Amino acid sequence: MNRRMIGYIIGKMMGVEALVLLLPALISLIYREDDYVFFLMTSVVLAVIYFLLARKKPEESTIYGKEGLVIVAVAWVLWSIFGAIPFTISGNIPNYVDAFFETVSGFTTTGSTILTEIQSLPKGILFWRSLTHWIGGMGVLVFVMMLTSLDDKGAMHLMRAEVPGPEADKLVPKARSTAKILYAMYFALTAVEVVFLLFGGMNLYDSVMHAFSTAGTGGFSNRNVSVGYYDSAYIDGVITVFMILFGINFNLYYLMLLKHFKEAFKNEELKTYLGIIAGAVAIITINISSMYGSVLKAFRYAAFQVASVITTTGFCTADYNLWPELSKSVLLAIMVVGACAGSTGGGIKVSRLVILLKSVTQEIKRLHHPKAVTIVRVNGRKIGAETRQGVYVYFICYIFIIIGSTLLVSLDNFDFATTISAVLTTINNVGPGIALVGPVENFAKFSVFSKLIFCLDMLFGRLEIFPILLVLSPSFWRKRF
Amino acid sequence: MNRRMIGYIIGKMMGVEALVLLLPALISLIYREDDYVFFLMTSVVLAVIYFLLARKKPEESTIYGKEGLVIVAVAWVLWSIFGAIPFTISGNIPNYVDAFFETVSGFTTTGSTILTEIQSLPKGILFWRSLTHWIGGMGVLVFVMMLTSLDDKGAMHLMRAEVPGPEADKLVPKARSTAKILYAMYFALTAVEVVFLLFGGMNLYDSVMHAFSTAGTGGFSNRNVSVGYYDSAYIDGVITVFMILFGINFNLYYLMLLKHFKEAFKNEELKTYLGIIAGAVAIITINISSMYGSVLKAFRYAAFQVASVITTTGFCTADYNLWPELSKSVLLAIMVVGACAGSTGGGIKVSRLVILLKSVTQEIKRLHHPKAVTIVRVNGRKIGAETRQGVYVYFICYIFIIIGSTLLVSLDNFDFATTISAVLTTINNVGPGIALVGPVENFAKFSVFSKLIFCLDMLFGRLEIFPILLVLSPSFWRKRF
Repeated sequence: MNRRMIGYIIGKMMGVEALVLLLPALISLIYREDDYVFFLMTSVVLAVIYFLLARKKPEESTIYGKEGLVIVAVAWVLWSIFGAIPFTISGNIPNYVDAFFETVSGFTTTGSTILTEIQSLPKGILFWRSLTHWIGGMGVLVFVMMLTSLDDKGAMHLMRAEVPGPEADKLVPKARSTAKILYAMYFALTAVEVVFLLFGGMNLYDSVMHAFSTAGTGGFSNRNVSVGYYDSAYIDGVITVFMILFGINFNLYYLMLLKHFKEAFKNEELKTYLGIIAGAVAIITINISSMYGSVLKAFRYAAFQVASVITTTGFCTADYNLWPELSKSVLLAIMVVGACAGSTGGGIKVSRLVILLKSVTQEIKRLHHPKAVTIVRVNGRKIGAETRQGVYVYFICYIFIIIGSTLLVSLDNFDFATTISAVLTTINNVGPGIALVGPVENFAKFSVFSKLIFCLDMLFGRLEIFPILLVLSPSFWRKRF
Repeated sequence: MNRRMIGYIIGKMMGVEALVLLLPALISLIYREDDYVFFLMTSVVLAVIYFLLARKKPEESTIYGKEGLVIVAVAWVLWSIFGAIPFTISGNIPNYVDAFFETVSGFTTTGSTILTEIQSLPKGILFWRSLTHWIGGMGVLVFVMMLTSLDDKGAMHLMRAEVPGPEADKLVPKARSTAKILYAMYFALTAVEVVFLLFGGMNLYDSVMHAFSTAGTGGFSNRNVSVGYYDSAYIDGVITVFMILFGINFNLYYLMLLKHFKEAFKNEELKTYLGIIAGAVAIITINISSMYGSVLKAFRYAAFQVASVITTTGFCTADYNLWPELSKSVLLAIMVVGACAGSTGGGIKVSRLVILLKSVTQEIKRLHHPKAVTIVRVNGRKIGAETRQGVYVYFICYIFIIIGSTLLVSLDNFDFATTISAVLTTINNVGPGIALVGPVENFAKFSVFSKLIFCLDMLFGRLEIFPILLVLSPSFWRKRF
């Protein structure tokens, strides 16, 4: 393992975080808040680390898949450790574990919060909180790759370790160019959402906050009651549409930019994703229509909540804790499904679900014709045995992590619905759950131990299990590298 | 597909059920109850079906794996359909869907009940209810195989379709002899338990009832408050030990009979099974000791409940609904694990868990050494790619069925803990769950629709998914066979 190169890249990453922290400092200055000092202090510390680690590029700069996984795991933890500092030293989140939870929740685009009162916090602090969503959504490392120079093979290993989904593609031959194109599209789509929100009467600051959160499929809002605050059908509609858009594989947008519309619209994952959304919205609309007196109003709340949960954003416009059990179960189920691979959303991803379902169907067919060879195709392309095996193992690990976390968190002695939905909402990077972690609740009530378990689950979810599992495996530490 | 042979074997099965029903008829006569009439009436109907279907063995008597699966699925459903009749026509369970639920719960050795008042039912009826556990435990078809003649290859296909676990072994070269040995050991162990229970002051009738239920890892008791009725540390102890014994792979008992003790005790599945029991008992004892004032008493209740749940028996001596969440979560987790393959217990089976965990560990090792070949060994024997693939697909189907069932049952609008634990307890063939299906509750409260879903889940669990999935798959019905 190339330790020097790992150190070098992590040093670069710290440098980039030092730069990024200047943005909330600027916002604090604009709003004449004193918090800019805390951002600058953290920035200086990071800059020092940058100069210590990344002054000189090592001569042997080759890295492989394994280094990619380690860098991703370490980088995300370090960004969160340092990103949490301004919250604590500014006194806004006095307990550092809480601040760390909030920052992990931000970067992993989960959106679970330990805050009970949000609106009264300083604008700079809230800006930083929402900015973590925007950067975490497209990827901390992809962001760094865009800004620094790395050889192409190494960059690809980083990208593969960080971009969600069973298979990572490059849009263009060079990984760095791919990163730039991804961020350009991401920025453009975010900007368009800001314009739409401004048009609905939302002020600029709130619009940017909610656009960051939608883009990263995060869920932090600068309002205590989330998007429900605005109580506007137009704003609900805009955010619903943009949440769904940010849950789509960005490769498809690139295909559309190249005018390959047919290929984009024939994508199986996209069709399944939209199909699940349509189905879930229909079921919930029928299920809750008597509560809201009008089918139209029920549809508005159902569509918003389904889009919010399947894309793993986690915004709320209604307290779905009061909805019938069927609606809640549907929401928990689509939490697990999640958004498309290569999007900013979490969950197991629609493409993995498609591969799992097709594999199972093939196995049932094999009961009819035991000697038949099973081939699974997605978008007409054959899915190799290795990819399928990878998806199986991913799913099995995912279920084991859910069971293990539920056992550990049940030490806090909250009811079963609270415990398991808290685990599901964190590992799938959604935000709120049901019962005592429902849309009008928060995570402050849990013990420090449970909060750290949730942090781990959020990282498992965002980084798709294996980087974190590698770093946690005993054999990783036994071996001197 | 050999339709004639399927009809022939199913005819045989109906004939055997006709004979089996004479036993509860006899018990009714002994206790001077009128219910023997209803058993005889059902028996006559079955005998007629037997004569219609199984008069003459078809000339072409070869069957394959697929026929084995179909026969198992159809046979279990038909045995339940007819087995439910005496409950309804005797007026003891007036609603036929309830009677069907109770009979499926019996044969699949689940032990979930729709009865609110058990003790006052006639002895013959309760005997039949418990006898279904005993027959279902070792297998309806294995039972039939013992009594009728089938060619060996065909018999093996039936056995493989019915005996739980990822791989079915024959003890001796002939399948029919294997069936006889299995039932002989099963009968002997049941008889020994009866003797131990009699020694504890339990009357003969109750002893036989509870031995049937323990042997089949079922859970039906003829007492309203289950084994808690006797409030005896000795009886709790005896049943705890026998539950654990019946959760062990019967092949190991055969090895011990052949004096291959070393091989038996070195078995990895056995060691894991006992390890999980020890761990779960330790955690729950600590967790509940303050409730019972004494560690010894806590240990007694914990050991009983852990043994009851992991072997998927479902007896109760304490209302664990009142225990802390951690204990309840541990119980739900070991429900999923279940007993050993080749035992009478349900769940995904310890051997599957071992294969899953070892496969996942291998995959993590592969992150370190990407080119390493992954080999999974259990008991020193290499587990082939096909078996592993089978275990993966099994687990994936299992999770999907749980999610699907939870969604459908949530239409009844019970709380989440009730809904999901009802699904878990039925698919794992345990019996009680938590919350409104806890140990002092029952399944009467659910809608007819949910009860039928639970019946399906119980059959999925006992027959290990694929037979039922095959019969339910649209392609099975599309094709004329």
